[in-house]
This record gives sequence, C-alpha cells and structure tokens, in this order.
Amino acid sequence: MNLRIPGPTPLPPEGIEAMARQMINHRGPTFESMFKDIAAWLKVFFETENEVYVLTSSGTGGMEAAIANTLSRGDRVLSVPIGVFGERFATIAETFGADVERFPFPMGQPADPDKIAAKIASDGPYKAVLLTQNETSTGVTNDLESLCAAIHGAADPSPLILIDGISGMGAIRLKMDKWGCDVVVSGSQKAWMSPPGLAFIAMSPRAWQAYETSDMPKFYFDLALAKRYAQRNQTPATPNVAALYCLHEALKQMVEEGVEAVEARHQLIGDHCRKRALETGLGLYANPSYFSNTITAVTLKEGMNTAEVLATLRDKYNIHCGASKAPGVEMIRIGHMGYVSFEEIDAVFEALAEIMAE
Amino acid sequence: MNLRIPGPTPLPPEGIEAMARQMINHRGPTFESMFKDIAAWLKVFFETENEVYVLTSSGTGGMEAAIANTLSRGDRVLSVPIGVFGERFATIAETFGADVERFPFPMGQPADPDKIAAKIASDGPYKAVLLTQNETSTGVTNDLESLCAAIHGAADPSPLILIDGISGMGAIRLKMDKWGCDVVVSGSQKAWMSPPGLAFIAMSPRAWQAYETSDMPKFYFDLALAKRYAQRNQTPATPNVAALYCLHEALKQMVEEGVEAVEARHQLIGDHCRKRALETGLGLYANPSYFSNTITAVTLKEGMNTAEVLATLRDKYNIHCGASKAPGVEMIRIGHMGYVSFEEIDAVFEALAEIMAE
Repeated sequence: MNLRIPGPTPLPPEGIEAMARQMINHRGPTFESMFKDIAAWLKVFFETENEVYVLTSSGTGGMEAAIANTLSRGDRVLSVPIGVFGERFATIAETFGADVERFPFPMGQPADPDKIAAKIASDGPYKAVLLTQNETSTGVTNDLESLCAAIHGAADPSPLILIDGISGMGAIRLKMDKWGCDVVVSGSQKAWMSPPGLAFIAMSPRAWQAYETSDMPKFYFDLALAKRYAQRNQTPATPNVAALYCLHEALKQMVEEGVEAVEARHQLIGDHCRKRALETGLGLYANPSYFSNTITAVTLKEGMNTAEVLATLRDKYNIHCGASKAPGVEMIRIGHMGYVSFEEIDAVFEALAEIMAE
Repeated sequence: MNLRIPGPTPLPPEGIEAMARQMINHRGPTFESMFKDIAAWLKVFFETENEVYVLTSSGTGGMEAAIANTLSRGDRVLSVPIGVFGERFATIAETFGADVERFPFPMGQPADPDKIAAKIASDGPYKAVLLTQNETSTGVTNDLESLCAAIHGAADPSPLILIDGISGMGAIRLKMDKWGCDVVVSGSQKAWMSPPGLAFIAMSPRAWQAYETSDMPKFYFDLALAKRYAQRNQTPATPNVAALYCLHEALKQMVEEGVEAVEARHQLIGDHCRKRALETGLGLYANPSYFSNTITAVTLKEGMNTAEVLATLRDKYNIHCGASKAPGVEMIRIGHMGYVSFEEIDAVFEALAEIMAE
C-alpha cells in the first residue's frame, strides 16, 4: 500500500518491529527508561527547554489540552484559521467557554502577521491567539516566526500563543523558545513515523502561569498531573505503550539524523512532489511562498472528479490520498511526511497520468 | 516477564502478530471493516443493544466521557466509592462541576444496595449514581445486578447509573440492558488482551436524553460526534490503529470462546490464585463473598514490606505485581485477567514462598 494520506503515515520497519513486543509495566524501570528518552528527544524537536508531555490521545486531544490548561471561561481569544484544522482549534475553545473571535484567512493562504498585529492593537486585549503551524487541509505552512514576532510586538503583555503543530512538527522546524510560543501541540501519526494515539504538548512558563487561574475543567488532560508524573518518567493514566515502542525507535532515528537534516529531507521531498504535480499537468492549491513540505494539495484538471480519482487510485493502484477539504475545489491531498520515498511520490503521479490519459 | 499488574496485561501472540503491521487509512474500507467487527463484538460483551463507541484514550478518558456527556454543572451526583478508582470517578465529576456527594464503603468491602436505596430515598433526588463494577485497588467485585435493582427501585425517575467497568468487563459479566445501566465504560488494557490506549463506552437511551441537556464541555470526548462517525465505521479523530489491530484479534478469540466461557475461565483462575495465596500462608484482603476474578489483593505476613517484596519479585524473578493501594496495609495485587495461565499464577506464589523462607 502507498499510504499518502496526511496521517496515519507509514511506519519505518524498525518501528513496526519494535511494536511486535509484549506489554510491560508502565510503572517499572524498563518503561521509565524508554519514556525518559522519548521526553528528551521530543524536546530536541520542539526546540525548547520546557518539558514535553506525552498524552494518550489523538492530536485533537492535545489541542483540547492546550485550551483547557491555559484559558478560562469568557476569556477573549483570537483564532486565526487558515483552513479546517484552524477552525477545529477555534471550536474547541468555544466549546470550553472561551469568547472566540475568528480572524480567518482564505483557504490556500497563510496568516498575515501585519494584519494580526493591527487587529490585536485595535481590538485587543486578547488572552490568547490560536495559530496553526501547517494547515493539513490546504498544504500551507504559516510563517510562525514572523507571526509570533508580530503578536509579541502588538501588545504588552502579549497574548498567549497557542500553536497546533500537529502536521508540521518533526519535519518543519518550530523554535518554541526562540519564537516565544506558549503552548505547542503535535501528534504521533504525522511526521513522527509512529501510529496514532499519542499527542505531545509543551507549555512555556507564561502558559503555566495562566494554568494557575484557568477555570476550564480538565482531568484526563490536566497537565499539572502530567507534570507531576513526568518527574518519575511516568504518566497519570495508563499510556499507549505499543505506540511508545514505535515512537522510541522513530525518535532515535530522527535525533541521529538531526533536526536540520530532517527538515532538509522534507524540503527535498516537498519540492519533488510539487515538481511532479506540475509536470503531470496538475495544479498546486497553496500560495507558492507558503507551500507545506509535509502535504501538498494538488488541484485536478477540469472534468476530473475528486471522489472518482481517489477511488481509482485506491482500487486500481492501492494508493491512498486525502480528499479535498476546500468546498467546491476538485483536489486531492498527498502526504509526504516522515517515512516516505521519492519512488512513492512518483508512483502517485504515474497513476494520475494514467488516469488522465484514459 | 510475568506481567501480573492489573494492566497493561499480556497480549496473546496472535495479537502481537496483528500489531506488527503497517498503518492503513483510517477512512478506508480495510479499516472500516475491522472497526465494524470490533463494535459488533464489543456489544456482545457489553450485553447491550446500544452502540459501543471506541475512544482513543486510557480508561480514565472513558470515565471523563461518561461524566461530561450526561451531566450538567451543579447536578447532584451520588458517588459510591469502594476504593481508589471509585474516588477517581467522583473527582472527575467534581472537576467538571457536578455537586458530588460521596457515599463510600470501607476498602475491601462492596457497596451495600439497601443502604444506597435508603440514601437515595432520604436524600435524593440525584441526577446520577457513580458505581464501580470491579475495584482494582482492593480486588472487590460489586454485585451490580442488586445495586442497579436497588437504585431503580429507590426513586422515580431513578438516577442515571454510570458504571466504571474498566477492570472487570471482558471477564466478569455486566448485563448492561438487563440491569438497566445507563453508561458503561471499559478499557483495552485489562481483560480485553489489548494494549492500553482505547476506551469503550456505551450509553442507554436515557443517557442520550441526558446528553441533550448536558452543559459540561466536551469536544474530544463528545459522544454525539463518535455516534455520527460510527455510522460509517469511523471515528471523529484519528484512532489508535495499532491497538485496534490487536483488539480485533483478541475480540475475535473472545467471541469464539463465548461470554459465559470467558467468565468461567476467569472464575477458575481467580479461585486458583486465592487458593495458592492461602496455601502460601498469605491473606486475602477483600470480603470473601465479593472476591474479584480479575485481580486479587494479597496481604503479606507481619514483617514483610510491600516495596521490598515487589522489588525482589521484579529484580530476582521478573514478576511484576501491583503495589498496595490501601493506606497502611502491606499487600500486593496480582492481576489475572485476559491472557494468563495457571503456571504464571503458580510462579508468583513459588517466588513469594522463597522470599518468605529467606
């Protein structure tokens, strides 16, 4: 199978092998040693001195944790959706009682730092701003460095910056400390080459300060509990041990390769995917200055139907791509994060060329 | 390793083999076929016509879902803890804003149906009662049939009955429909012979009615979303695919064996564990009429220290048991749920006999 959806993503063979193992005591030394490695290696890729906590949930659970651990009911929150997953972040904040104001940018476009700064200056103060590092629905990577700088410069104190890094991190750099991000979330089934079921989250000292007064309810996702147990390399509730087996192997490989090399590899595969799309006569949905190196949204030619193309790719070629998330736009989304080869990307476009020839 | 903690529990070899597989599309036909089987097979063991939803979380996440999907802030809730995990259920309800009244029974004892009925009649009405099927901290199994009957008889309308079935279900029968249970929760890493990271939850029509007015915030654990996606055999967020691979195999085996045979097997292994404990000169903590068939709390002899015994079992014999959860009581807890043999139980007591001889 050529699994090109934006998660779950393929596991490296060593990760699959690592999962073919019996369970262990999650409160014993073997687990604690593995968990200690994982926490340390995640910090390398979060580029932070803050602790990174591992939650047993999908990435969406991590987004809920980001909200519930820092905000209070009625807090004014500026949400900056640039696609479907940015919308989800806003909805979670609303569901938990925040007073959310949406400041959206068109699908396919990134968020504009200057406009956000102006918005904060004119309509603030906001307790927090919700950003997406990499919008999975459109294949757009935000310029987080500029966005964070603009937000920090727009108000004093500046709003907390909460970042959904689920589909970008581990491939596209996110310098949590240097850029002044307050909460950063990611998920195991994206560039981390691991199965779904683990979310990662780190909080800045400012975020921990906000935790003290946050009145949104949390128990399963309470990060103070996670923090307490992390001191002995454990988790409050029973963790997703099998996925951790794989993650341990995947992170080991990633740290050996290095943050910069991992990013460079994703740049190459992203470039390759976009080149092949254009060569095949297909279009690219995203603003070219903000192409994502983990996922490409490829627009189809007139007369081509997304559902039919996806079904043919699946049934005839055993290639699995993502559906369009842009209303009225015929396009498919091709994931190229983590464990993926140039040949697998070529195979997608060879199949698409055949489909188009018919 | 002889893994005798009450979860994670050992996986059957076929389950481990099933996990050594590449990821698949969680919105494709292969996944949907597997997920459909799992949902159907869980219904067999929940003994219900209600749908059983699969959440990507620890069992504790399932407990939070039970609370947040049925209750509102300020609802009067009667919690009936008989140990540590009953306390956790109460704490979650409090955290989410319920007005929780604790009606505890001493550790080692079950809840008394008559006393609960009298309490409801005198101090009710309550919106819900929180019960534990099998208290993992003491090795006590409640008589849920009598408890449910007493609660239903104590008020009209009777309170919702929310049940933590995490460490009992899949081994000890729970007749959700026949007994009139409203919400039932379990977790993959107990008798279900699967890795941690999946919670199971079913809601009665009465619970769904309560959902309509429930104002506690939920997004990741929102069961209306789970219900909607379950109609096409999917989940709202990306599910724990690797654990589902194992669960599919484990449930297939369990359904082939049959609900009654699975329970009878656990009765035999429970009897065997208790017999061996007494033969070794050790004590049993729980009320003998309510012994759990999934976990036994074994009290140590005077002069024996729990931490030392656990460390020796682990370091010298590679046997992993649970620590005492009863303050001031020197005891160890031995799990015997799911994939476990008589020989593995014998090995624990042979080691304990050697430790005692020294």
